[in-house]
Amino acid sequence: MPDQKQFVVTPWKVEGAVDYEKLVKDFGTQLIDDRLRARITKKAGFSNPLLSRRVFYSHRDLGWLLDMYDKGEEFFLYTGRGPSGGTHLGHIIPYTFNKYLQDAYDAELWFQVTDDEKYLVKELEQEEISEFARQNIADFIACGFDPKKTHVLLDSQCIKTLYPIALKIAKRTTFSTAKAVFGFTNETNVGLPFFTALQAAPCFLPSVLHKRNIPCLIPAAIDQDPYWRIARDVAPKLGFHKPAAIHCKFISGLGKGGKMSSSEPETTIFMDDSPTVIKQKVMRSFTGGAPTEEQQRLEGGDPSICPVYSYYTYLFAKSDAELQKIFDECEEGELMCGPDKTRLAGRVAAFVSDFQKKKQKALKRVDDFLFREEDFT
Amino acid sequence: MPDQKQFVVTPWKVEGAVDYEKLVKDFGTQLIDDRLRARITKKAGFSNPLLSRRVFYSHRDLGWLLDMYDKGEEFFLYTGRGPSGGTHLGHIIPYTFNKYLQDAYDAELWFQVTDDEKYLVKELEQEEISEFARQNIADFIACGFDPKKTHVLLDSQCIKTLYPIALKIAKRTTFSTAKAVFGFTNETNVGLPFFTALQAAPCFLPSVLHKRNIPCLIPAAIDQDPYWRIARDVAPKLGFHKPAAIHCKFISGLGKGGKMSSSEPETTIFMDDSPTVIKQKVMRSFTGGAPTEEQQRLEGGDPSICPVYSYYTYLFAKSDAELQKIFDECEEGELMCGPDKTRLAGRVAAFVSDFQKKKQKALKRVDDFLFREEDFT
Repeated sequence: MPDQKQFVVTPWKVEGAVDYEKLVKDFGTQLIDDRLRARITKKAGFSNPLLSRRVFYSHRDLGWLLDMYDKGEEFFLYTGRGPSGGTHLGHIIPYTFNKYLQDAYDAELWFQVTDDEKYLVKELEQEEISEFARQNIADFIACGFDPKKTHVLLDSQCIKTLYPIALKIAKRTTFSTAKAVFGFTNETNVGLPFFTALQAAPCFLPSVLHKRNIPCLIPAAIDQDPYWRIARDVAPKLGFHKPAAIHCKFISGLGKGGKMSSSEPETTIFMDDSPTVIKQKVMRSFTGGAPTEEQQRLEGGDPSICPVYSYYTYLFAKSDAELQKIFDECEEGELMCGPDKTRLAGRVAAFVSDFQKKKQKALKRVDDFLFREEDFT
Repeated sequence: MPDQKQFVVTPWKVEGAVDYEKLVKDFGTQLIDDRLRARITKKAGFSNPLLSRRVFYSHRDLGWLLDMYDKGEEFFLYTGRGPSGGTHLGHIIPYTFNKYLQDAYDAELWFQVTDDEKYLVKELEQEEISEFARQNIADFIACGFDPKKTHVLLDSQCIKTLYPIALKIAKRTTFSTAKAVFGFTNETNVGLPFFTALQAAPCFLPSVLHKRNIPCLIPAAIDQDPYWRIARDVAPKLGFHKPAAIHCKFISGLGKGGKMSSSEPETTIFMDDSPTVIKQKVMRSFTGGAPTEEQQRLEGGDPSICPVYSYYTYLFAKSDAELQKIFDECEEGELMCGPDKTRLAGRVAAFVSDFQKKKQKALKRVDDFLFREEDFT
């Protein structure tokens, strides 16, 4: 394992303690500043905690995109999901931010479901991935997206539309570039390098369908940024705008550090977990608390390294004031981990229960959201 | 240029004087022997000059395939075309052999038109390639294939059907393997290595559609053999038979050696050439004749290196007896190049004129031959 100073972030691997400021420098992106935050908040009419609390913290060309918007050039949103497991809170939290942006800018949203990529990288059969995809799409829909403005691109089903665009990108991307950007080796299968072009294709699809050059904004976790480097490199050669991006940090699991991940189910809140399971997982969570209650009363806890506190930050504090109060009381040794976890567990369980009702309805609407080329011709 | 001893044969490049016997050894294929020739001839009911004169001369697993057939296991034929230019005699001659095999074995024939590959390797736009594809498909149909048993796979149009099969192949093929088989480098674009899986996909498509394991026979020029090595490598891992193949030599142009190629129009008979143009091209052809008529009467010509003679061999001698007579008279100095070319030019012009009438009808039937997945579900 890398030590605290070293970390690795690629689209397929996150290891070590991520230094997000360093990542911005390494990737060549920019921090979202107060002015940009204020522009979005003003347009939306209210503040989103994922923005104000800097979960979404980095960007490419966001200022340019908002300038274009102010001049009357609408943009579309593009995000996605790799369907290789159940949906968890780490997926839902960024979805809520997409919903916030869709509502604020009345923007079309394109959601790519990469069943092809998951088949290429996972030990799963195509049929298993199809079922994950259907469930994942319903989970996405359940976040409340506007069906008139939201299009789900399930790769295997809309490959005929994406393929000619992917070919244009692939023709202009060498294996050398793909190696440098994604860390491929000669032992990588021949599907993945081409897939990088296929994941870039939706950046240009709405422009192709609407026959005009439409700016694109990609909200995604920062580990996905390499895909958009390929897209940004090729865009001018194809006569399109470079896609802009807004990046979030990883949503942490309930363990000691690390991204919430299906491969660690004990520290992951799945959206089909029962209230009992959720309570168990939260109560067993790693925290920033002291080893004993007595010590915590004396020395206080450390909310900055506490996953429980991070969940209040992402979604579960009722207000900034409450979040500040939790922070202060923890640090002062006034708030013990037990009651803090119990409160969070209750809120998460209620959120997930409510979500499950919406999901049941969403499952019946999957087909309504699937992209059909004939709707655009 | 390599000397006569050196030659290079890849799917994209043929250079030097090809030693076909050596190619069989290098590629690890086998020569078609008298017994195999006799089996096919007997089944067809008549001899095909492309077989008896050893233009189709090499194979993989042809004996196994015919044994399977004799046990009641029908096979299908799979061949194809890269649409980056006009159709010429070098394409039509192997098509006639496909027709011979289709009729002999009452076999389904799958014809892949690789508009995607041609876009990836040529300086052409997708729209230009689409038009070449339509023309090339009509040229193929004009050779008289049975519409009930012949399916044209235009990659961009049937990618949704081919893609899941190509993914299965791509997942099991490393860039290393593709490099070794095709000579790719790090500067190759990321589309081509994946395309190798897409060109292998039709080997298994009929088995997928008909839901049983159907043997496949690929008639193709020997330079295409590397594609089927990928398919043969992957086949057992996917539970399919390895595709069998029957390979032809390159159809020579009218210049001094070399494969007939659109990139050398002066020495290529295009299927839309006028009788006047055909006559010009044939009359200007390189030959195996002596420098002067007098010398030829004295020393004779060399039909073995003569493209004019080779065209009699492929398609334009009326019988083996006539072919032998031409050979002997040339060698003996009794036949001069002028009258020999005039006779060939007349036969080629008549063949092409007749073909053009069939092509005009075929242009209206292109859609009837295009594969539609719904016909198989």
